[in-house]
Amino acid sequence: MIFSSKLVEDAVQEFAKLPGIGKKTALRMVLQLLRLEEGEVDEFTGAVSRMRHGVKFCKECHNVSDSEVCGICVNNGRNRHQICVVETIRDVIAIESTQQYNGLYHVLGGILSPLDGIGPEQLNIGTLHNRIKNDDATEIIMALSPTIEGDTTVYYIARQLKDLPVTITTIARGISFGGELEYADEMTLARSIAKRLPIENYVTIQGK
Amino acid sequence: MIFSSKLVEDAVQEFAKLPGIGKKTALRMVLQLLRLEEGEVDEFTGAVSRMRHGVKFCKECHNVSDSEVCGICVNNGRNRHQICVVETIRDVIAIESTQQYNGLYHVLGGILSPLDGIGPEQLNIGTLHNRIKNDDATEIIMALSPTIEGDTTVYYIARQLKDLPVTITTIARGISFGGELEYADEMTLARSIAKRLPIENYVTIQGK
Repeated sequence: MIFSSKLVEDAVQEFAKLPGIGKKTALRMVLQLLRLEEGEVDEFTGAVSRMRHGVKFCKECHNVSDSEVCGICVNNGRNRHQICVVETIRDVIAIESTQQYNGLYHVLGGILSPLDGIGPEQLNIGTLHNRIKNDDATEIIMALSPTIEGDTTVYYIARQLKDLPVTITTIARGISFGGELEYADEMTLARSIAKRLPIENYVTIQGK
Repeated sequence: MIFSSKLVEDAVQEFAKLPGIGKKTALRMVLQLLRLEEGEVDEFTGAVSRMRHGVKFCKECHNVSDSEVCGICVNNGRNRHQICVVETIRDVIAIESTQQYNGLYHVLGGILSPLDGIGPEQLNIGTLHNRIKNDDATEIIMALSPTIEGDTTVYYIARQLKDLPVTITTIARGISFGGELEYADEMTLARSIAKRLPIENYVTIQGK
């Protein structure tokens, strides 16, 4: 792309560094920002800047937070006996948005992936161990991606925690709501038949 | 979406205001910014801020520019007899990136669209008229979208300029390179047959 303005080119290049943003999309976003009032663009850059400089990671669960300990961890209305282990902050947002889970979280910051150089030391596994020892957790819910790396991580963590008095569960795998049976992959379909449920357990989720 | 950090939520909301960016994409971008060093994020916000506050619109052609008159308009190496009329800045970048055009531009800032309240007064048509009168232009190349609004705008401008000593041309319509004949719409195919070219004119564009 050939630009007639270095200022525009620089801004496009910065946007194009973001994931999934090509040069054309970056340009579209920059031109949209050009169309906005200067004050609105200041709000945009201000929010991004405040976010990056101000955001903290909760020292309990490693979730993003505006304070030392996040709003979920300090909330006494939540069930402190359950800790849901997730890969990223995005998973916390996804689960919170279902409004169906009332326990605590633990953000690993990734999953085991030796090929990418991610071993147990790179993940927040040690702090999970400490939390369980010092807190009231009785159930650890593993909510990781249903991939080989995810399963390896579940297995590894389960082994690390085997001497602690907690039950370890994993989220259910099966056919998605609205998913068509014939398009489900064999593994999912096989598992969902093997782990079939009595009709009484066929719950309807409220509020969805 | 339910966030545990107001700072993250604000940044996501700002990104989600950009065109074609939904909440999920906005979140992915914000989390990527969180992963960057603070200095890198400062570069990002700095580039956006400098761009918005510093960018000018060329007083000749209305293209974005870092100075009063843009680099294309001041460049004496360019053919000052041709002015290519385009809808937006994005079109200038697209045509410049072909490296096949060496004339000047004129950015209208939109096309006539009465339903959206865009009449001739909202577009840079008056300044085009003045440029042609005062400058050396001999050819006006209309490079607008092949839509009803685009064609209306071409027709309107051509009528406005009819007393001036300039030739008005429009860019060729036809089957795209790599486009399959059978998938071309009827209008395009019909026009490309009606406006067929002698084989001598079947030029190959260099550098593409």
